[in-house]
Amino acid sequence: MAAGERTLILAEGFSADPHYGKTMRGVLRYRRDDVVAILDSTRTGESDAGVPVVGDVEGGLAYGPEVAIVGVATQGGRFPPEWRDILRACIAKGLSIENGLHEMLADDSELRPLADAAGVELRDLRRPPEGLDCATGANLDVDSRIVLTVASDCAVGKMTVSLELDRAARERGLESLFVPTGQTGIAIAGWGIAVDAVVADFISGAAEQLVIEGHRRGGELLWVEGQGSLVHPAYSGVTLGLYHGSVPHVLVLCHRAGSTEIEGSPGHPIPPLRELVELHERMALPRRPARVAALALNTAGLGEREAREVVAAASDETGLPAADPVREGADALLDAVLAGLP
Amino acid sequence: MAAGERTLILAEGFSADPHYGKTMRGVLRYRRDDVVAILDSTRTGESDAGVPVVGDVEGGLAYGPEVAIVGVATQGGRFPPEWRDILRACIAKGLSIENGLHEMLADDSELRPLADAAGVELRDLRRPPEGLDCATGANLDVDSRIVLTVASDCAVGKMTVSLELDRAARERGLESLFVPTGQTGIAIAGWGIAVDAVVADFISGAAEQLVIEGHRRGGELLWVEGQGSLVHPAYSGVTLGLYHGSVPHVLVLCHRAGSTEIEGSPGHPIPPLRELVELHERMALPRRPARVAALALNTAGLGEREAREVVAAASDETGLPAADPVREGADALLDAVLAGLP
Repeated sequence: MAAGERTLILAEGFSADPHYGKTMRGVLRYRRDDVVAILDSTRTGESDAGVPVVGDVEGGLAYGPEVAIVGVATQGGRFPPEWRDILRACIAKGLSIENGLHEMLADDSELRPLADAAGVELRDLRRPPEGLDCATGANLDVDSRIVLTVASDCAVGKMTVSLELDRAARERGLESLFVPTGQTGIAIAGWGIAVDAVVADFISGAAEQLVIEGHRRGGELLWVEGQGSLVHPAYSGVTLGLYHGSVPHVLVLCHRAGSTEIEGSPGHPIPPLRELVELHERMALPRRPARVAALALNTAGLGEREAREVVAAASDETGLPAADPVREGADALLDAVLAGLP
Repeated sequence: MAAGERTLILAEGFSADPHYGKTMRGVLRYRRDDVVAILDSTRTGESDAGVPVVGDVEGGLAYGPEVAIVGVATQGGRFPPEWRDILRACIAKGLSIENGLHEMLADDSELRPLADAAGVELRDLRRPPEGLDCATGANLDVDSRIVLTVASDCAVGKMTVSLELDRAARERGLESLFVPTGQTGIAIAGWGIAVDAVVADFISGAAEQLVIEGHRRGGELLWVEGQGSLVHPAYSGVTLGLYHGSVPHVLVLCHRAGSTEIEGSPGHPIPPLRELVELHERMALPRRPARVAALALNTAGLGEREAREVVAAASDETGLPAADPVREGADALLDAVLAGLP
């Protein structure tokens, strides 16, 4: 999404789902002014965050969109038949499409010619840039302070925490920059690399390029969006490659209050917070030690008092500052991070 | 390399280099009978492991090769101009080419048409299979015992240790199988997936498919070839994804005797063996705990007595059985692994 581009969010069937609707939620939160409508035929006529929900592409046209963004993750990261109908309709109506799934629209033998004929763009947010390679060690020469969000699981709020901390830091006048590493972060910030989509050998190399680029863009304080979790049975490789390649000075550990098991992976427990803190510090490269400076708790769905108790308990367990930056603002976490930086 | 296929190893400039010549060394050790010549113009007329070294493709033809295998890693994993001359000459002389670099020959706009015209194959060992996806948890249902080699660094002998242990196990009549996860292992065994070349999100999914396939091929005892190292600044992501995706019951920790720094990464220390053992056990998924059953020391280059001392010291430090399986045979390590299996 270029700045100011009028956007229709495609969220068929999942606009109310916090997990599958992650991209929609992020775009609604951080690019609200550019969103004109949401497409989800299961909620036609409702509104979400003040944005009208429409039942089909035709219905969305009344709001004058220029681009449609795929706002939900489909099962397996690929487009089922009903989705292809929606995509074809967007192209036919002259909308460019922004897509963050692993399936690349610009390579699609049916959609690509249609888009070319209609003169619209197919932007694949997860497509790796040309010329990626293994990490070289140049990341250690980046003259910025680097903060990475890590977590107990996927989809607990790492991107949001990084964005909130970046915003708070900029409000204090710091030369602060959010570094996007996933499709939603890229849609929001307009640059970045989806590190989970690169050739596996190049994860750390991509992370290295991102911190170099973040410094080049003027970030003296870089908030690197974390991915996955070191204890996730499917995504831990991306997590560790991003960790080692982005060479953070400080970590912020994110956790959904009350979660004890990896979502979607029954039988895979989430270790206690104290263990997670130690594990993450232990996995830092000796050449760039990193401490967890604070805990960011996601207390969405809890009452005010319950949330306060959960945050206090997490702080007690770990001896670290803790807060829910969405509920309370990011200032306390920012203080803790700044105090922890070398 | 299909079984029995007469093979010319392309090793220009690096046939004597243990690091860059890893593929050549592996093929020479485990597919010796199929190798007819080695191409390296810097050593023309010499022989290596009893195989004649020739200066160009023309010179190799006298030995009747059917296929040429890229036996060395080039700088950056891509083909410099002098290498393209060699590849063109192979194609012109009717040789198929087997290639394990990240650069895919079958996608090359110059070489592909030449190969098609000459009727030869361009086999890219690192090309990921179609249909890879994230790990699903089906790995935990595989009814085999799974042993993964892990290590302090790249290129210390993980593949060799897995192959030697597999051979020793088969000699004892066990239904044992080597599971290849890298280009050299694939060249040797004729199947497998190069897990460092898949989409980063699919590392664990590829590892999961490999242990499922290993079981399907009759392996009751699977020796999964490890990759990289958890403490390597560039490759740790692949290492952890492979670890979690292959769900090993037991680990064998490989180490080059005397190494204290990651090769090619100055300033990145290798932690002491005792710490490495603990770190690897710590990083197992709670759902599939894994213990290090033994240490495999690479003592190449040491004298007999020095090697014995190094092995004894490693065992003392960690309290674990230790051996150099290439020097002493793999029986002691195999005993330790079998004793450690659940």
